[in-house]
Amino acid sequence: MSAADLMAVLFSGYLRYDFDAPENSANDHLVFSKGHASPLLYSLYKAAGAIDDAELLTFREFGSRLQGHPTPEIPWVDVATGSLGQGLPIAVGIALAAAKLESSELRVWTLCGDSELAEGSMWEAFEQAGYNGLDNLIAVVDVNRLGQRGPTMHGWDTAQLAARAAACEWHVQEIDGHDLEAIDAAYATALAADRPAVIFARTKKGSGVAAVEDKENQHGKPLADPEAAIEELGGIRSLSVAVQAPPAPKPFEIARAEVERPSYEVGEKVATRGAYGDALAWLGSIDEKVVALDGEVGNSTYAERFAAKHPDRFFEMYIAEQQMVASAIGMQTRGWKPFASSFGAFLSRAYDFVRMGAISAADLKLCGSHVGVSIGPDGPSQMALEDIASLRAVLGSVVLYPSDPNQTVALLDAMREHEGISYLRSTREALPTLYESGEQFRIGGSRTVRSSDADAVTLIGAGITLHECLAAAEQLAGKGIAARVIDLYSVKPVDTEAIVKAANETGAIVTVEDHWAEGGIGEVVATVLADAGIATKLKRLAVTERPGSGPPAALLAAAGIDAESIVAAVGSLAVLQAN
Amino acid sequence: MSAADLMAVLFSGYLRYDFDAPENSANDHLVFSKGHASPLLYSLYKAAGAIDDAELLTFREFGSRLQGHPTPEIPWVDVATGSLGQGLPIAVGIALAAAKLESSELRVWTLCGDSELAEGSMWEAFEQAGYNGLDNLIAVVDVNRLGQRGPTMHGWDTAQLAARAAACEWHVQEIDGHDLEAIDAAYATALAADRPAVIFARTKKGSGVAAVEDKENQHGKPLADPEAAIEELGGIRSLSVAVQAPPAPKPFEIARAEVERPSYEVGEKVATRGAYGDALAWLGSIDEKVVALDGEVGNSTYAERFAAKHPDRFFEMYIAEQQMVASAIGMQTRGWKPFASSFGAFLSRAYDFVRMGAISAADLKLCGSHVGVSIGPDGPSQMALEDIASLRAVLGSVVLYPSDPNQTVALLDAMREHEGISYLRSTREALPTLYESGEQFRIGGSRTVRSSDADAVTLIGAGITLHECLAAAEQLAGKGIAARVIDLYSVKPVDTEAIVKAANETGAIVTVEDHWAEGGIGEVVATVLADAGIATKLKRLAVTERPGSGPPAALLAAAGIDAESIVAAVGSLAVLQAN
Repeated sequence: MSAADLMAVLFSGYLRYDFDAPENSANDHLVFSKGHASPLLYSLYKAAGAIDDAELLTFREFGSRLQGHPTPEIPWVDVATGSLGQGLPIAVGIALAAAKLESSELRVWTLCGDSELAEGSMWEAFEQAGYNGLDNLIAVVDVNRLGQRGPTMHGWDTAQLAARAAACEWHVQEIDGHDLEAIDAAYATALAADRPAVIFARTKKGSGVAAVEDKENQHGKPLADPEAAIEELGGIRSLSVAVQAPPAPKPFEIARAEVERPSYEVGEKVATRGAYGDALAWLGSIDEKVVALDGEVGNSTYAERFAAKHPDRFFEMYIAEQQMVASAIGMQTRGWKPFASSFGAFLSRAYDFVRMGAISAADLKLCGSHVGVSIGPDGPSQMALEDIASLRAVLGSVVLYPSDPNQTVALLDAMREHEGISYLRSTREALPTLYESGEQFRIGGSRTVRSSDADAVTLIGAGITLHECLAAAEQLAGKGIAARVIDLYSVKPVDTEAIVKAANETGAIVTVEDHWAEGGIGEVVATVLADAGIATKLKRLAVTERPGSGPPAALLAAAGIDAESIVAAVGSLAVLQAN
Repeated sequence: MSAADLMAVLFSGYLRYDFDAPENSANDHLVFSKGHASPLLYSLYKAAGAIDDAELLTFREFGSRLQGHPTPEIPWVDVATGSLGQGLPIAVGIALAAAKLESSELRVWTLCGDSELAEGSMWEAFEQAGYNGLDNLIAVVDVNRLGQRGPTMHGWDTAQLAARAAACEWHVQEIDGHDLEAIDAAYATALAADRPAVIFARTKKGSGVAAVEDKENQHGKPLADPEAAIEELGGIRSLSVAVQAPPAPKPFEIARAEVERPSYEVGEKVATRGAYGDALAWLGSIDEKVVALDGEVGNSTYAERFAAKHPDRFFEMYIAEQQMVASAIGMQTRGWKPFASSFGAFLSRAYDFVRMGAISAADLKLCGSHVGVSIGPDGPSQMALEDIASLRAVLGSVVLYPSDPNQTVALLDAMREHEGISYLRSTREALPTLYESGEQFRIGGSRTVRSSDADAVTLIGAGITLHECLAAAEQLAGKGIAARVIDLYSVKPVDTEAIVKAANETGAIVTVEDHWAEGGIGEVVATVLADAGIATKLKRLAVTERPGSGPPAALLAAAGIDAESIVAAVGSLAVLQAN
């Protein structure tokens, strides 16, 4: 109710949107960053003729698309909101795509709450939008001064927030959010601004109904006397509004540079992070929808190799991982295929955005580099050791962990084609190329890289630990023990069949991962075995103590995940020698 | 090298610290938010006489406490840094504790990088510190204009950053960071300010060595000619500095309110989130070190019940989960026992802070409420469905999921006593009390709540699904199938013995959880079985599709984790009836 006047003026005079054709690329975007204002959003759909009264009354019912917070199950909703502080950052991504990639005339409108301005992610968005001069972005802040549990930090004193936004190079207005003429004038002024515009609108929560207006402890609660409230608001009416149509879409050009598909010689030492950069540059040349974002570490993730070839489709997001993922989510609403990269450890900063991205059914490709203790001297703050666990626990996600540069190229191409959230974990160290260029690798597959009829144990690794498994298999062979080695490059979905076959044929399994023991490769394999009802000898090697700095080999040994540790684990399983 | 002048003046004239007694509560704090400046920090320790040349030369070697980024393995380091944007927020927590809880005269100094000002978490910190008027906090920003891969957004133009900090009610200075007199004057002015103070110091990366000074592509790289650099800097010297001692510590008083230990009647319907609030208020009365923080949802997590009894030890962090966790980490460096709460879903916002907290060996107690689909109509954005997976994958963490309010009380007391990172997952819905008040529950335990000699299957749940398991067991009894029911309230560490015993005695297990299938209770149980080499019939019930809004019962049924689904799963396992 606090934002009803603001949105009524927007719908009647400014929004350009064809509700019959939500796929029209010239439509404006409207993001309710304060997703809990969903009753207002759905009422606007009703007023615009997009839904009817009967559907409106299914609000929050089981099976209704009109959920407690908006999701893209509704065709006019771009992204799920409801975790505060995400809508504006995502709107920045939409505006970046429209302005920088498409030269579109559309505008991105965002309704924000005042409470959510406490989230740092909002200020990442203010800074990025200002830095990029996104004059197609208008944020409307509903300053109703009351959060869920009481007054906000700044109440109706919008001066501090306004000063901060102005410092971020935004056009700033402060208005009475219930003064229709002031709202109208503010929108007109915002549209004329040569920069992103924000309107701080002082409003009253529960506006128009004295029983709740500007009162605490009413957040999210139904009215005690809705009949009286309707009467007070002017009685039952059925307001409708004719929303302006958008202009005709304009075509746009995408610059394309020719880049060869990278390929590496077997035995050549290449880090998979390097292959990421090479492959991404190639993908940009075969698919004009591919864009890349990086968190100011492009010379480590090697996203810079994409930037060098496709500067117009590269977005430097600086050290703002939340804004990076939000931008990617915004861009994919317009059909772009965003690859976003940082150190795997730092992607944990954006975990809530990835979580919400899954609710949005977003098409989001993530790459985390510098995983595990094997990064060496930089120490534990830079080591992703929880990324497999956390990113497996995302609805419908794909988690890949290549062991070789040619495989990395193939998997990135598979990620490009895959719709949904996918994550590729890359390694800092240069390791020998194992596979021929052009070999096929599918999401959900695995590769048995060493096997014989005499296999008495199976070693399962991925990434750097696959190389340790191979070294261990050599050592075991010297002791008369034949070891099968499986490259479990697709951790989710996992190749259940290969694991069950190995358990049945070899009778003992050792898993090895440069990751915590929880939620990683070892638990995935254990779960496959338990689900299949197979009792086998199992030893799971993983990082279980706080690592420090040091050379990679020393850290792998200290963590008990190097070749020698694998050989010892096989010994502890009492695997029998041949003969 | 860019910040050497800044820190030299700090150590020689302003810092008050007894390096022989880091436990002295009157010592100032110094947080290197830009943890990659560790060579400078360690050199300062050498100059202060805290370490010697031999140790300094172990930098980044295996086993050395002088790691690539600082960690509290060094006694003068409070918290691990190296994930940018965390040091200042944690410093705010230290300053809050010192100012608001201890009335201490200590000062909290923080060296920040300019690149990390792109992290929204830094602006959560600026806002919180300004809002709380923390005049004991001084931030020094080393504006060397070059990030890891190139120029920062704003370069040496500090005006925008200064304006934003000023809007956050900070005292702001902009200086030449290589002008010793200007630095000295700025520190004196900052100390005299009646508010938090920030000094934006324009500096040159690699200052003093022409080969690298103010040049790109030198980040984190050793000098090509260190001998020439030493010569250029004035030759080999062994500078030492006498750091001022702190004043004598002052005693302080903590207000204590008497609160009875909460207890609930068996059968009484109480939500575990309510028990959280009740128990926390009680813990505050029996342990004066207990403090509570909440992310502006205290009327949902019920942290407000603590606030009502112990207002001086409650901190409203507004909707800024990163700052909430950072504040808690800061407070525990001074011996406080912080409990921080929000919706479990929103704690994902602070995941990187929890990750780094583990590297800091922080004593951090987290509570996430409103977990799982059973929250009902608010929809998926508010449902924590990945929290068990993500928080298990934190070094040394404890993950608890109580099923009953009396158990919640006991487990929170156990969390109070436990040192390390612990997480309690609480439920929105009011459910019947199962256990007598005063029953003992230990971290790492479980409770078999129903069993007989004839048990043909074991149902394992926790939280709301334990109640579904009990209902299913009743239904199964009607079909002549005796079911054991285990309350797996401690998901990490887990009661391996009880699971193995159940597998051996009942031959079939069904796990049920209001969480994604990945990394939760089902995988934990599967891993216990696989590790033990037990082949048993196993069915894991968990949430596997995107939920919507609706009544809790409908959502539990749709997810296949209600009593009827459990009964069906038992059927699918072909569990034999008795007789």
